[in-house]
Amino acid sequence: MTHNLSPTIALTQQLIRRQSITPDDADCQEMLGQRLAEIGFIAETMRFADVDNLWLRRGKREPLFVFAGHTDVVPTGPADKWASPPFNADIVDGLLYGRGAADMKGSIAAMVTACERFVERYPDHRGSIAFLLTSDEEGPATDGTVKVIETLQTRQENIDWCVVGEPTSSQRVGDVVKNGRRGSLNGYLTVKGKQGHIAYPHLAENPIHRLAPALTALCAEIWDQGNDDFPPTSFQVSNLNSGTGATNVIPGTVEMVFNFRYSTEVTHEQLAQRTEMILQQHGLHYDLKWVLSGKPFRTAGGALLTAVQQAISDITGYKTELSTSGGTSDGRFIAPTGAQVIELGPLNATIHQIDECVSIADLDTLSSIYEALLVKLLT
Amino acid sequence: MTHNLSPTIALTQQLIRRQSITPDDADCQEMLGQRLAEIGFIAETMRFADVDNLWLRRGKREPLFVFAGHTDVVPTGPADKWASPPFNADIVDGLLYGRGAADMKGSIAAMVTACERFVERYPDHRGSIAFLLTSDEEGPATDGTVKVIETLQTRQENIDWCVVGEPTSSQRVGDVVKNGRRGSLNGYLTVKGKQGHIAYPHLAENPIHRLAPALTALCAEIWDQGNDDFPPTSFQVSNLNSGTGATNVIPGTVEMVFNFRYSTEVTHEQLAQRTEMILQQHGLHYDLKWVLSGKPFRTAGGALLTAVQQAISDITGYKTELSTSGGTSDGRFIAPTGAQVIELGPLNATIHQIDECVSIADLDTLSSIYEALLVKLLT
Repeated sequence: MTHNLSPTIALTQQLIRRQSITPDDADCQEMLGQRLAEIGFIAETMRFADVDNLWLRRGKREPLFVFAGHTDVVPTGPADKWASPPFNADIVDGLLYGRGAADMKGSIAAMVTACERFVERYPDHRGSIAFLLTSDEEGPATDGTVKVIETLQTRQENIDWCVVGEPTSSQRVGDVVKNGRRGSLNGYLTVKGKQGHIAYPHLAENPIHRLAPALTALCAEIWDQGNDDFPPTSFQVSNLNSGTGATNVIPGTVEMVFNFRYSTEVTHEQLAQRTEMILQQHGLHYDLKWVLSGKPFRTAGGALLTAVQQAISDITGYKTELSTSGGTSDGRFIAPTGAQVIELGPLNATIHQIDECVSIADLDTLSSIYEALLVKLLT
Repeated sequence: MTHNLSPTIALTQQLIRRQSITPDDADCQEMLGQRLAEIGFIAETMRFADVDNLWLRRGKREPLFVFAGHTDVVPTGPADKWASPPFNADIVDGLLYGRGAADMKGSIAAMVTACERFVERYPDHRGSIAFLLTSDEEGPATDGTVKVIETLQTRQENIDWCVVGEPTSSQRVGDVVKNGRRGSLNGYLTVKGKQGHIAYPHLAENPIHRLAPALTALCAEIWDQGNDDFPPTSFQVSNLNSGTGATNVIPGTVEMVFNFRYSTEVTHEQLAQRTEMILQQHGLHYDLKWVLSGKPFRTAGGALLTAVQQAISDITGYKTELSTSGGTSDGRFIAPTGAQVIELGPLNATIHQIDECVSIADLDTLSSIYEALLVKLLT
């Protein structure tokens, strides 16, 4: 079966065939850099620890528009369960299959081809265009975008507008964009009791029994009401462990890991303070370590948001929905610089799953939206 | 250092030097059988699976008085942490050290020597005396006393009075006897939710959050008030586990193991019913498996209890205290036959620990109490 494939689809296939499982970039960035160099982008590799990052910029003027994305993908899971091999990039019935097809090699290809067409039409566009590529988004995300942004900040290279290619669409390409993300805060709690024989409970103190009413209160707590952009803050326990395995021993400690996905109505400091107040009201003896994964951010208005909404409407004919739901993304590292950040990519129904796929028509539409966006902002 | 050791102490040392870690009897029973055969006991070995048991009886008449005990011991733990090697049976400052010294080779030796003196004085005593020895008390306790009792029941060999040699004493030998034990009931609970990504809690159902208020209610429940013989029934969680290890996944299930130590004011059926009612009131989806370790029993009065109290008072000069506290014992298997059961042995301060020991003076006193008991009941 041969296809008369668009440049976007052909480039997506080239990227999928490179097995770039986090943090391995598998030379995706080098290929993209060479291709964008042909239309005037200057490449700057930024390797931190074992993570390849690439900063590509066309032009020196302001304003600076950035396409951000990651070349790494999550593992395939059992490859024999895929209908076609996960790095083959086969097209069946208009769907392109492969690990990274939707998250997010398709987006990156669409960004590149959008630039190619735009630069051909407007070689002397105003401002600058850049690509921020990392191979660490699906992993610990400590040596990727966050380090590139630090480098840019240090030399006062400021981003005005940024589009992240995460797969945000729900039913139709472009129907949902993310104009922010909730914050994510993890708590690692150890409640201390006193170990003992279960036949002598008066000589022990069961930390599970001490925790139970405090946990009930934490689960029932209304942390905020959310706002127009964010759903209410949610508290969820991810892990809870206690006990020696023996049935006749009262354990000495209980370990609990929990997570807040939080809105802009509260800060992580407030959540920590309120959590500890509840633990203290219940008289618990505890250790508690907090790890902040990302503060919430939102792009409530501005030229980028307007242009994205118009571009989607122009190309698809329908109105996009703004959302801040879902997990975190590298947008959390870019927004704090003051940049306007929007995430826009293909359907996310199959990401991280067996038989991840993307509609080839959607990728061509996505590339057209990206191009329209450049036209609106840089001409 | 040489000691002029009593027969009780010498026999205790012989038993300790046999390394009879559960279920290995290390020929303790054979030695005891030969020794008791010399004073007219008829031995009947009862081996079930890998467990040695021995039934020794002197006489065919009723009433039947039984000394019950176990020849097995728990492991030593790190032997190099013992002040003297755990199977050496060294005596230092009036204390005999070794694994099993207090739990319960000392008691067995005291029972044997008590019989020897008693039979010499009263060769034609009324009734019969028997020994029920097992090497499975510290282990699963499935092929030991419970199987011997089944065998005796089948042939209608009924026990009237039974003294179990468990170390019941607290500060002075004989100061506490057990005239019963609480029941022990374990519950294995799985609460079912729906696994999902922690960023999408509305698509998942966190079983930890569902369990928390039900657990709070279980911990707060008053199961009974106890009675003159039993403390109130206690509920304790021994193990609680949930979570995939990942911090961004809402787990699908939570597993909880809990234990009731319960009085004669409730039955295990009632505890199970009330527990399930609380779970159902909280709308939990769950699986729950119950394992009954032993029903509660007590010997509230009768000739044996009176004789034990008088014998202790006669020999020691102080009044014994009745107790039903602590763990389970093989008494739970003997009492349901209708036998009067009392547990009486040396101090329990060091059992199952490094440097387990027993006072040699206490063992001689204990042997005298056992002998006085035989005199009261069988002459």
